[in-house]
Amino acid sequence: MKQFTCVQDIGDLKSALAEAFEIKKNRFKFVELGRNKTLMMIFFNSSLRTRLSTQKAATNLGMNVIVLDINQGAWKLETERGVIMDGDKPEHLLEAIPVMGCYCDIIGIRSFARFESKEFDYQETILNQFIQYSGKPVFSMEAATRHPLQSFADLITIEEYKKTPRPKVVLTWAPHPRPLPQAVPNSFAEWMNATDYDFLITHPEGYELDPQFVDNAKVEYDQMKAFEGADFIYAKSWAAYTGDNYGRVLSTDRNWTVSKRQMDVTNNAFFMHCLPVRRNMIVTDDVIESPQSIVIPEAANREISATVVLKRMLEQIP
Amino acid sequence: MKQFTCVQDIGDLKSALAEAFEIKKNRFKFVELGRNKTLMMIFFNSSLRTRLSTQKAATNLGMNVIVLDINQGAWKLETERGVIMDGDKPEHLLEAIPVMGCYCDIIGIRSFARFESKEFDYQETILNQFIQYSGKPVFSMEAATRHPLQSFADLITIEEYKKTPRPKVVLTWAPHPRPLPQAVPNSFAEWMNATDYDFLITHPEGYELDPQFVDNAKVEYDQMKAFEGADFIYAKSWAAYTGDNYGRVLSTDRNWTVSKRQMDVTNNAFFMHCLPVRRNMIVTDDVIESPQSIVIPEAANREISATVVLKRMLEQIP
Amino acid sequence: MKQFTCVQDIGDLKSALAEAFEIKKNRFKFVELGRNKTLMMIFFNSSLRTRLSTQKAATNLGMNVIVLDINQGAWKLETERGVIMDGDKPEHLLEAIPVMGCYCDIIGIRSFARFESKEFDYQETILNQFIQYSGKPVFSMEAATRHPLQSFADLITIEEYKKTPRPKVVLTWAPHPRPLPQAVPNSFAEWMNATDYDFLITHPEGYELDPQFVDNAKVEYDQMKAFEGADFIYAKSWAAYTGDNYGRVLSTDRNWTVSKRQMDVTNNAFFMHCLPVRRNMIVTDDVIESPQSIVIPEAANREISATVVLKRMLEQIP
Repeated sequence: MKQFTCVQDIGDLKSALAEAFEIKKNRFKFVELGRNKTLMMIFFNSSLRTRLSTQKAATNLGMNVIVLDINQGAWKLETERGVIMDGDKPEHLLEAIPVMGCYCDIIGIRSFARFESKEFDYQETILNQFIQYSGKPVFSMEAATRHPLQSFADLITIEEYKKTPRPKVVLTWAPHPRPLPQAVPNSFAEWMNATDYDFLITHPEGYELDPQFVDNAKVEYDQMKAFEGADFIYAKSWAAYTGDNYGRVLSTDRNWTVSKRQMDVTNNAFFMHCLPVRRNMIVTDDVIESPQSIVIPEAANREISATVVLKRMLEQIP
Repeated sequence: MKQFTCVQDIGDLKSALAEAFEIKKNRFKFVELGRNKTLMMIFFNSSLRTRLSTQKAATNLGMNVIVLDINQGAWKLETERGVIMDGDKPEHLLEAIPVMGCYCDIIGIRSFARFESKEFDYQETILNQFIQYSGKPVFSMEAATRHPLQSFADLITIEEYKKTPRPKVVLTWAPHPRPLPQAVPNSFAEWMNATDYDFLITHPEGYELDPQFVDNAKVEYDQMKAFEGADFIYAKSWAAYTGDNYGRVLSTDRNWTVSKRQMDVTNNAFFMHCLPVRRNMIVTDDVIESPQSIVIPEAANREISATVVLKRMLEQIP
Repeated sequence: MKQFTCVQDIGDLKSALAEAFEIKKNRFKFVELGRNKTLMMIFFNSSLRTRLSTQKAATNLGMNVIVLDINQGAWKLETERGVIMDGDKPEHLLEAIPVMGCYCDIIGIRSFARFESKEFDYQETILNQFIQYSGKPVFSMEAATRHPLQSFADLITIEEYKKTPRPKVVLTWAPHPRPLPQAVPNSFAEWMNATDYDFLITHPEGYELDPQFVDNAKVEYDQMKAFEGADFIYAKSWAAYTGDNYGRVLSTDRNWTVSKRQMDVTNNAFFMHCLPVRRNMIVTDDVIESPQSIVIPEAANREISATVVLKRMLEQIP
């Protein structure tokens, strides 16, 4: 695997899951694979879970890790040719990125949507610059439009907890005081669409996601109806995607907060969220503290998904 | 050992010291013990000596280390139930802390007294949250009320330099321009009280420490009298503890600065301080530069005390 | 090797180059040498290439690495005796530096010229404090007056690309909007003067470097004339050194920008720069993108020069 940015990059999901469960049984099984190999983790945005779980994953494989925190504002690379660089951009991407590639074997990048330009965000400009110019395998540690390590961990978790071969999985929007990127819901939809689960998305009008991610998923504007008979509830807030509303908060309606009222119409569904989660905005205390809440095992699986991805990349290094 | 926050946690001091000296002879003797084990060091306050010595200790044991610097102001975890989290607290401790525990085997926490509330500080709120919710062994890298890795290093140092079985050890307050937490003197008193040394505390009136730490120690307000015949002088500044003066500087009287005048009445005592030290406030140049000053070997023993603590925690991990 | 701050410290260049090429063939050949040894990298100034390449070098040798970022402004060590330390300096260098030396085996220091005092900068005050007081081998990761890891990498690169035994190497000043330290040109001159290359320096009047670094090198104020028949062009901007102009930008004349016009009079010279480079100030797009540009392999050799230096220091540790 030369890059990991979306569900297509992981290939056959059954094989990927088999590898995940093999690693979960013995997470140091491949500790010799990364010997004398270096992972460089580059953060344009701050990180807690992703940083810790990915660093742990590299450790599982015996890799060395270099962490680079780049203040997003400070990372002003010139990208054009012909510009007289006498301003605030000290370096051109054509020099900066290949040099970083010199000192490592695999690169992880975190770079969020900035909500300044939908085109800039959805073209994944920064992630793609590293793929194109670093000369090394690159994986996303959450980019502008997707968070594939999270989605892969979500898939592993559902496989562990599901009680029927084709569970009903519902992605529900929930309110939040700030506008959040669509990376997690986009990515979750993309991965769920790649399974044979019964997958449905519910959100208020105006919160439609990019059609390329919604794909064949059912969309239901009535949250209560969406929840009926669900086996898994996956809650997440996101800012509007469509039209001029890109990056805006259109609603903070707490009727959409996941509570006992909605959970009662499910098939005793498990509750999932990628964390951090704002209680009583996204979900009530009693739901997230209930035995059906699997947010902690879900977070723990981040280590497993990252280990699989790094393992596959290491296997392809000559 | 499941937690290390105070002298009681280390158990029998003689065994602990024997282990310390065994490690000091060959600090890589147990380098296989930490293989594939990860230490997470979480800093709510900045650190130089503690960070370096603890990281080195983990290395001695072959562990992997993840360092997490959390700006104290930025760490706003919701702790209550029922709160609608639409403000500045993005996460609830019941999610945040268990997740950190997922990605490591042992957790070290540094969290100082804030001097905003004596109750909050002396309940060790943050340290105890990690002990209660992380699911992993937790040790203090200086908490609000104690600094046990320092005190254990102090004890090792005294054992190395003492010339009599029961030396006279004097903890003396000294002036400092800023209000400093009581963690170091509290902790030193607690550890000295656990030995059979002749232990005495001296400070100006108003600087009384919490009685639970003073315990049976003698308190002498006349510094010159306290120093008579002492074998070890342990200097430290601290802010007032008692009553409404909690966290205040009551005196910067440089008559309390440790100088030749006071050292001359001791039994050619060794001079100790946990560092950093302000010269000519805490101690004069000539005293700290004299052959009797053992502040550098004392600091070097921080690596040894941390190695013992980590070793004991590793031995208990299944 | 107990210290590495200048070309003299590396000794015979032929042996050093032989070691470099041996390591380049198999950069993990000495991975057992650094087992249980710790490198402490202390940064008083920010770093990208140096940090990454030196950390990778330590990894090549199996060392553990501790990185310490010290805000230059925050590092206020008292250096005098007799001062009552009741101000903004919390620690004396006589305590601070020996303690850092306690927890590691080798120390790397980055500390730039501040342009506040030529005397302070050119005495290498901070670097020398670590050499004098840390008790451990110390190497420069760019100091006020030299950048020897860069110059060594430059030498390795020239040896790899040269087509004649004694190539003509030209160091040329180039414009930049900000005043930059002389460390890179000083150091490059020093290393080139230690070879038998035909070495020449060109810059506008007023940009003369410290004579101790220029030494026997030819200085030519006419850039076009300097470039005639050159085999390597090494471009770099620097602020004035001489007299009251110390630290000032005297010119931003883009006639000095390296372009096709100048390269055309060379012997199809290779183009070098230490990076980061401002395009169309230092060098035009077409020159830096040409096949003759070797800035990326030059940067990659930073890993090699650092590995040689660390290897030699490790070999001398008892």
